[in-house]
Amino acid sequence: MTGIEWLIETFGSPETALRSETSLRILFESIVTDMGLKPVGPPVWHQFPDTGGFTGIWLLQESHLTIHTFPEFRSACLNVFCCSTRPGLDWQTRLHVLLGATEVQVREFHRLYDRR
Amino acid sequence: MTGIEWLIETFGSPETALRSETSLRILFESIVTDMGLKPVGPPVWHQFPDTGGFTGIWLLQESHLTIHTFPEFRSACLNVFCCSTRPGLDWQTRLHVLLGATEVQVREFHRLYDRR
Repeated sequence: MTGIEWLIETFGSPETALRSETSLRILFESIVTDMGLKPVGPPVWHQFPDTGGFTGIWLLQESHLTIHTFPEFRSACLNVFCCSTRPGLDWQTRLHVLLGATEVQVREFHRLYDRR
Repeated sequence: MTGIEWLIETFGSPETALRSETSLRILFESIVTDMGLKPVGPPVWHQFPDTGGFTGIWLLQESHLTIHTFPEFRSACLNVFCCSTRPGLDWQTRLHVLLGATEVQVREFHRLYDRR
């Protein structure tokens, strides 16, 4: 069995999007819906009072989503981890449409956990 | 500003360690203590009824910890993400001592989020 994880950095988003729990919630829900993932409970959100940046974490049957936003740098770091390989989304378009990102960097890694 | 993330796979642990919330909680607490990290609330744990494997997520001021255990494969996948670079731990020794892992694979990535 091999998992798959995307490490994604976004740049150029409006600060307001990165300080909006609603925007981030819509992003998480769109990923879960379009990849056919099954959440375990609701996501956990924390907003940092100094910058207004958010951390969001969503535990899934298939592993997890996390995001950290940095409004002061107009950037964010997203992780999408699935415990079985599958196609990703068009991350550039998704993050442009939902967070206003003007640049998106994506790295994809396999995570082997069964070597029998 | 650049973050740092470790993607870690462990192999060879006893199934009992990977089904023990106590073992995993001690691992998380030891990482937080020895790296000087500051949790935001308690960790969230979920045990999967079919395999007894756990997912654990801990939101930190400095980003997050996650673990997924696969007792059926005697393996686990750990992520440690910090929003500022710092030295890691001796992951091999730590995961051998606390989870009984006989092999540990570590990948380290920088995550740039300020390109001004």
